[in-house]
Amino acid sequence: MSSFSKIDTAAITHFQGLLGIARVGLDQEILTKHASDETEDLSFPPELVLFVHTAKEISNVLRYCNERTIPVTVRGGGTGLSGGALAIHGGVVLNMQGFNKILNIDEQNLQVLVEPGVITEVLQNAVKEKGLFYPPDPSSKGTCFIGGNVSENSGGPRAVKYGVVKDYVLNLEVVLANGDIIWTGANVLKNATGFNLTQLMVGSEGLLGVITKIVLKLLPYPDKNLLMLVPFPSAELACEAVAKIFQAGYTPSALEFMERDAIEWSLKYSSEPSALPIGDTVQAHLLIEVDGKEEDILMREIEGIAQVLEQMGCDEILFADNEAEKNRLWKLRRSVAEAVKAHSIYKEEDTVVPRAALPQLLNKVKALGKEFGFKSVCYGHAGDGNLHVNIVKGDLTDAQWEQDLPQAIHLLFEYVHALGGTISGEHGIGLVQKEYMSIVFNEVQLNLMRGIKDLFDPKGILNPGKVFPTC
Amino acid sequence: MSSFSKIDTAAITHFQGLLGIARVGLDQEILTKHASDETEDLSFPPELVLFVHTAKEISNVLRYCNERTIPVTVRGGGTGLSGGALAIHGGVVLNMQGFNKILNIDEQNLQVLVEPGVITEVLQNAVKEKGLFYPPDPSSKGTCFIGGNVSENSGGPRAVKYGVVKDYVLNLEVVLANGDIIWTGANVLKNATGFNLTQLMVGSEGLLGVITKIVLKLLPYPDKNLLMLVPFPSAELACEAVAKIFQAGYTPSALEFMERDAIEWSLKYSSEPSALPIGDTVQAHLLIEVDGKEEDILMREIEGIAQVLEQMGCDEILFADNEAEKNRLWKLRRSVAEAVKAHSIYKEEDTVVPRAALPQLLNKVKALGKEFGFKSVCYGHAGDGNLHVNIVKGDLTDAQWEQDLPQAIHLLFEYVHALGGTISGEHGIGLVQKEYMSIVFNEVQLNLMRGIKDLFDPKGILNPGKVFPTC
Repeated sequence: MSSFSKIDTAAITHFQGLLGIARVGLDQEILTKHASDETEDLSFPPELVLFVHTAKEISNVLRYCNERTIPVTVRGGGTGLSGGALAIHGGVVLNMQGFNKILNIDEQNLQVLVEPGVITEVLQNAVKEKGLFYPPDPSSKGTCFIGGNVSENSGGPRAVKYGVVKDYVLNLEVVLANGDIIWTGANVLKNATGFNLTQLMVGSEGLLGVITKIVLKLLPYPDKNLLMLVPFPSAELACEAVAKIFQAGYTPSALEFMERDAIEWSLKYSSEPSALPIGDTVQAHLLIEVDGKEEDILMREIEGIAQVLEQMGCDEILFADNEAEKNRLWKLRRSVAEAVKAHSIYKEEDTVVPRAALPQLLNKVKALGKEFGFKSVCYGHAGDGNLHVNIVKGDLTDAQWEQDLPQAIHLLFEYVHALGGTISGEHGIGLVQKEYMSIVFNEVQLNLMRGIKDLFDPKGILNPGKVFPTC
Repeated sequence: MSSFSKIDTAAITHFQGLLGIARVGLDQEILTKHASDETEDLSFPPELVLFVHTAKEISNVLRYCNERTIPVTVRGGGTGLSGGALAIHGGVVLNMQGFNKILNIDEQNLQVLVEPGVITEVLQNAVKEKGLFYPPDPSSKGTCFIGGNVSENSGGPRAVKYGVVKDYVLNLEVVLANGDIIWTGANVLKNATGFNLTQLMVGSEGLLGVITKIVLKLLPYPDKNLLMLVPFPSAELACEAVAKIFQAGYTPSALEFMERDAIEWSLKYSSEPSALPIGDTVQAHLLIEVDGKEEDILMREIEGIAQVLEQMGCDEILFADNEAEKNRLWKLRRSVAEAVKAHSIYKEEDTVVPRAALPQLLNKVKALGKEFGFKSVCYGHAGDGNLHVNIVKGDLTDAQWEQDLPQAIHLLFEYVHALGGTISGEHGIGLVQKEYMSIVFNEVQLNLMRGIKDLFDPKGILNPGKVFPTC
């Protein structure tokens, strides 16, 4: 790692020759803007920001950086939660905002060809206008880039019914570390032709190449949905109810869990005048959506689910009976992360387990909290067994925060692994989780991954210092 | 390749020590049984067949074979269509029949842990008894092994709605070439933890490791379905109708295409007394199924689809109005491959394109047939753009068959690639398609795949001579 070259005058002149002076960012202001993402309060300014516009330009940049061993980190919307876009070894950050075109919405084949710098929600709205549906919807969908979603294998509430990003990526154009440009697959729904380079690239967090074009599968838009908020007298009971819904044969299009604090903090954080009354005995909520094309079927489904939950002992269910009410409930859910952030210094863990193990996972979080003296706020995509554990600093000392907490997280992740789960469901490993990788992978598995990294990027210039544990 | 060791007395003695004499197959009869799969009329007897029962045994076998550079080819149900299970360099064939246990049907998490030697249909029936659904259903489902399905990333009729095998594999236990045993992932629906070794293994055709346990995602069983057979006056029109169905917002659970010859040969081949009357003007059929939980919705769906097809100019639709009728129609469809095989020497190509390009693909097949003088029978999973092109030898001379036909296939695959498609949708590359790989992948892409192979299997003992082109 220490053998990386620093950016010098020759490099700057070279990049200015490639891209023009205006697209080579050197100002402190630009570097600072590219120093952080949404992960805690980290800051790693790059030496240089390049505003690239084409795969050919990226190819030229990578060829040069590869020759000179200059680190290259790709930045999407900057909404990452594991520090994946941070240039921790300096070097170049590629700003992908210029890749902002939806190149082709193929209505005949239900596919879209899109550049990686398109905002996820912009893409969703564009295909929706044609009656089509791109389901993955991370909470940051209004600002994150589709390229970042592919690199992290993002999820979101709808993953429970529709799957995650990997389930929609058919083909990728990728610039390799040496400047070669390849497509990873074909624009087809089935493919048994060689190793699956497409799926190897999805979720590889910028370590294997720079994605420059994306072919996604689309679905017909399910234009109707129903939403309900279900309070529970205990968080454990809410978690237990999750698996029961699927066992009863229902597949909601969202099944979100929120601890009482999550929804209360979100209510305080939002400036909405009409507060949601939360009964004193309520300890957690499930937010449940069903979607489809036929209103009568959705009514039957949501009533069926409500029956399951009432048998489980939920409190009085709130059915959202108009679009404004639905939006308000979804806004509350989507604001939880920001509300927690505004409330206290925190660490967010992205645990995922088989969904029936959720109650055990939640109990373990709380038991560790008692043992190590921390408070936690848990919420997330319960239908997928994906629980976001927000550990808030509160009254912990800096020493406790920096020395004791990693031990607690280590114990939590060991437990998650023992339950058949893993340490990240949708946020990726990036910088902040890499030292925990050896909990879920042994040296044989890690060495296979390291070998793949070496194959794609022999000099290790792409997003160095991420994913793999250093110790 | 020429540096592989032959099986000698020392090797035999070693394996007999590991497994016992009864599980080391040396007889000519056993070797002959393991010489062929369902691919054309190929025959490559191995030197030895090992009837392995545990991952530990396979680990010991591989460690020995790796040290001595003895080829190892894994055999599932022997139903492969690309020669993937054939020991073309001799050595050992691992017979996986002993891995025949369904270890755990997890009704709480909708998952199953299964050994690779379980017959796909046996697995489907076992989970169905619990109200659960494993959708991928290759035509050979009554005899193929789930492990082979994973290795080939198999599909089948239901892939159009439910996806292919890769969409169900959550985690795999794999024995690597050096004998190390790993799990590739975790038993979760979402995973953003390191490179996706699971998806790298799916469809890798036995080149990267030996799969010994499989964790599959399941769905609630959709217990109702409706089926119709739709005749068309032209094959091209039938193909054009396929994309229209999806554009109208319908997602059938099967959408199969059969040329007139396909269904006629299948009718002749089957011993069913009640022949299906096919009108003189009919040139092709679509077999269309919808499934779900609500009969009224299915009725609306199938009527909506029927309307789309009538507007396209189909002939009179046959609705299957009872289970016997449904079974008869499915049996006809599933027997096509065997019927073609019984009819003539043939070659089957597994082309796949974006579905709206199906009419162009079909026209190209027929144009090449005229140019090169061959007859073809086309059928397949039209909803996925996956057309099985059966080229029958008929009156072609051996010289034409062996020298001219590969040129025609080459031209066909170039066309498929130009349409955004690829050369195998679900049968894999194996032995018989490997020389065509350079049509769809350039040296950069192939070298990445070769690099992955070298990383997992440095001495190249696992299924040598497959997937990668030799010239």
